[in-house]
Amino acid sequence: MGRTADYSRQSCSIAGTLEVIGDPWTLLVIRDAFNGLSRFEQWQERLGIARNVLAARLKTLVQHGVLEQKLYSERPPRNEYLLTAKGKDLYGVLVTLHAWGDKHVFGEGGSGVLLTHTTCGSKLQPRIACNCCGEMVKPRDIKLSRAENRPTVAEMMPKEAA
Amino acid sequence: MGRTADYSRQSCSIAGTLEVIGDPWTLLVIRDAFNGLSRFEQWQERLGIARNVLAARLKTLVQHGVLEQKLYSERPPRNEYLLTAKGKDLYGVLVTLHAWGDKHVFGEGGSGVLLTHTTCGSKLQPRIACNCCGEMVKPRDIKLSRAENRPTVAEMMPKEAA
Repeated sequence: MGRTADYSRQSCSIAGTLEVIGDPWTLLVIRDAFNGLSRFEQWQERLGIARNVLAARLKTLVQHGVLEQKLYSERPPRNEYLLTAKGKDLYGVLVTLHAWGDKHVFGEGGSGVLLTHTTCGSKLQPRIACNCCGEMVKPRDIKLSRAENRPTVAEMMPKEAA
Repeated sequence: MGRTADYSRQSCSIAGTLEVIGDPWTLLVIRDAFNGLSRFEQWQERLGIARNVLAARLKTLVQHGVLEQKLYSERPPRNEYLLTAKGKDLYGVLVTLHAWGDKHVFGEGGSGVLLTHTTCGSKLQPRIACNCCGEMVKPRDIKLSRAENRPTVAEMMPKEAA
């Protein structure tokens, strides 16, 4: 997060992820990248956030390798921002955030933004499945264990983003 | 989020979820509730955050029905905070955040916090599956559609938490 919370001394992958994407607006920037936005002005218009905040968020996401810059105009020089493979890997986070908000914040009618699983045609109700055995994973089927001398989030941050 | 980002005019379930759990520290409070913490002093010791910040986070999570208060001592009166069904439903969000950080922040060795799927005994690599057909869901299999006149996040917030 940086601005208002210091997760850097945590030895935890959740804290590590939040250090990269936990800033205000960042997850909505990524959400809109999944929805096809790639240019500064598009995000600015869609989100209505301050230009300096948006510029800072895009810069951080590039430093962390979640987005990559690509020149789309030479005169004047203009970059667009595209999700990398690392960025696309966040889709599970977005889908679970969406499902929880749909169910528990908006309730019955949902938010009106509908995700459909095109393969079967149903409204997507995402479940967590195990990549190894393919079974649905329930919270009680997860065991947590901690190694000694775990690295901290701070040790894992790219130098230019620290 | 409230403090530094205003998501209230968004009509989006992701923004709705972040309005509830997007504050700094909040997801780590919930993480530790999943790990069995239930008392103010335990979180304070584990996270090392300011007492007023922790108190505000717990209060907000109770207002939103993610945690519920339960008296565990009458003299002096002391509450503990337990995950509700709504709170437990966040485990998919936590598991996907964990997996991304493990892979993309900590990399090869992981963070040293290992989640094991006890049913098959493997390290948990969570995938998104469709509750309807049971298949693994790929990003390209998701279609997004938007209804007209969608409600905003602000309209969905409980009055006492607004």
